[in-house]
Amino acid sequence: MLTDQARGFLNSHRVARFATAEHGGQPHVVPICYAVYDNSVYFTIDEKPKQLRDKPLKRIRNLQINPHVALVVDRYEEDWTQLGWVMVQGEAALLDDGEEHTKAQRLLKARYPQLHGMQIGDLPVIAVRITRVVSWGNLSTAS
Amino acid sequence: MLTDQARGFLNSHRVARFATAEHGGQPHVVPICYAVYDNSVYFTIDEKPKQLRDKPLKRIRNLQINPHVALVVDRYEEDWTQLGWVMVQGEAALLDDGEEHTKAQRLLKARYPQLHGMQIGDLPVIAVRITRVVSWGNLSTAS
Repeated sequence: MLTDQARGFLNSHRVARFATAEHGGQPHVVPICYAVYDNSVYFTIDEKPKQLRDKPLKRIRNLQINPHVALVVDRYEEDWTQLGWVMVQGEAALLDDGEEHTKAQRLLKARYPQLHGMQIGDLPVIAVRITRVVSWGNLSTAS
Repeated sequence: MLTDQARGFLNSHRVARFATAEHGGQPHVVPICYAVYDNSVYFTIDEKPKQLRDKPLKRIRNLQINPHVALVVDRYEEDWTQLGWVMVQGEAALLDDGEEHTKAQRLLKARYPQLHGMQIGDLPVIAVRITRVVSWGNLSTAS
């Protein structure tokens, strides 16, 4: 699904913007830190399980109603010949625990040393199963 | 609607990510260059009017069906105490010409010198009428 070039572009950037849509069609979009493996994009929800049970984050509530999601990773430079982006559309799955949950958290910690000091083991992970990829512009990653 | 701090954060950044949702709830999200004035966020569609008539961009087709939109402007730094974002939700209006269309293009050219050499006068402008603002994290703009 992801070309090598698109995968390289995703792996060479640090932040994606993740869009969901509420019932009624109102979009919601926030930045996320992510990791890509095979045909999935993973990110963790920085919310305590207790809070999650009581009043889930807006993005979790949206996902329970509508699992269709999109995310974009892009490069902005003042030299507009360098502009490029990769948009991924897919279906979101919530991973509470299990092998894939553990693997996703390991991938995230490998990419983000900032997570090393945090207790993220109990936090849920969102897995975006990629169904469509659209890209535009300059996706070169040599700098 | 926008606090002075949120407005300052939007004005101090260069790229937003703009989310729409198709009928059926599939989100779509792409980067945009934007300008803010009063209670609207403006960006131009880099598509020829002829092309637009024949086969409008996906984001335009989405907007005609569902004018609810969202956009986010964020700061990513490896020092995560610097992370912050402002998400704007609103209704999109398509401006083909007229006073506001001209003003929006002037604002965009003032922010992006890259547009100076381009013939954008005939291109449509999307105006996002802000209905809700959510922000998180560090929105300071002093650097």
